Amino acid sequence: MIRLYEYWRSSSSYRVRIGLNLLGLAYESVQIDLAGGQQSTAENLARNPQGIVPTLEIEGLRLTQSLAILEYLDEQYAAGWLPGNARDRARVRAIAMAIAMEIQPVCNLRVAKDAVSASGGTYSLESWMRDHIGPGLAAVETMLDHPQTGRFCHGDAVSLADICLLPQVYNARRWGVDMNQFTQISRIEAEMLALDAVRMAHPDTYTLA
Amino acid sequence: MIRLYEYWRSSSSYRVRIGLNLLGLAYESVQIDLAGGQQSTAENLARNPQGIVPTLEIEGLRLTQSLAILEYLDEQYAAGWLPGNARDRARVRAIAMAIAMEIQPVCNLRVAKDAVSASGGTYSLESWMRDHIGPGLAAVETMLDHPQTGRFCHGDAVSLADICLLPQVYNARRWGVDMNQFTQISRIEAEMLALDAVRMAHPDTYTLA
Repeated sequence: MIRLYEYWRSSSSYRVRIGLNLLGLAYESVQIDLAGGQQSTAENLARNPQGIVPTLEIEGLRLTQSLAILEYLDEQYAAGWLPGNARDRARVRAIAMAIAMEIQPVCNLRVAKDAVSASGGTYSLESWMRDHIGPGLAAVETMLDHPQTGRFCHGDAVSLADICLLPQVYNARRWGVDMNQFTQISRIEAEMLALDAVRMAHPDTYTLA
Repeated sequence: MIRLYEYWRSSSSYRVRIGLNLLGLAYESVQIDLAGGQQSTAENLARNPQGIVPTLEIEGLRLTQSLAILEYLDEQYAAGWLPGNARDRARVRAIAMAIAMEIQPVCNLRVAKDAVSASGGTYSLESWMRDHIGPGLAAVETMLDHPQTGRFCHGDAVSLADICLLPQVYNARRWGVDMNQFTQISRIEAEMLALDAVRMAHPDTYTLA
């Protein structure tokens, strides 16, 4: 029994849903309502000391941090989300981390709300998000201007980079970032969304409790 | 010839310095003065599309993103920074990422200055740093309250987690976070600083240009 403690709109949860679906692993989704503060309950803190989502219960383990979870799934289920040699793995991980470390944490709702509320009107949630997602994705677009970019971020198979990219694009669109300027990213978004397993992980497939 | 484009005070640069030193790999350090805006020059953007540090030139490659770099070094030089089985690797990566994804990006100087300047006095750089580093390290301390914690974060050998932890502790002390509350982290800090290779990577060993 695989159980994913997650939130439908959380992009790090969305990453893990894509991974599980691509592997065809059935799981129970337990929604932790970030908007309602459920991430900070004693129950959630016991399973995730950082008070965030996602947490994956699998094979008697309780795993946190979406990229650590995806690397685990890749290793245990031979997912093929990382290329066969070290230099190419470094490229894929660098793209994934350019998203997961440079863009997403700054646009984490808690951090963004903190900055916006302290700004007393200088920043709106929308402008904070746009100011940080836009330049971040521009850098990723530059990284994708590379001979090894194929149908997906690296060659013609889904990698860790694509699994991180799609949820960030969802967020970018949500906050009104102009995606037309990013041709490689938009093209890869379409490739990803053409896959049933990926589409099934989309936040819109969830109904609010 | 290995060349590291980095900044003495950057914690992600500090991670890579620790890694290179632990492996006994000699390298040339090229300082990119973040305080002086050198990260945004055309030269630096050409080697690092995100306009940050570090960038590692090694074996004809140009690698970015500190954790992707460390995973590369671990693979190519059999560094042993990740344990032998998937469940333990997931634990080590989760601790490393709890630091590198949840704490460090929010306390990136660019992001912090942005939030502080928009706050018009509500936040100082010091208070922004403390508000985000303190709770982040508290969560890491909880993760270290675990039977697999040994001399270091995972067992008795240096792992990716320790390499991420030490620079974050340096930052925490710099911004006045009370480290006495974190007994496991402080103990591991001391273990790390007892190693010559690690001590050689410390920001204090650098003189400003």
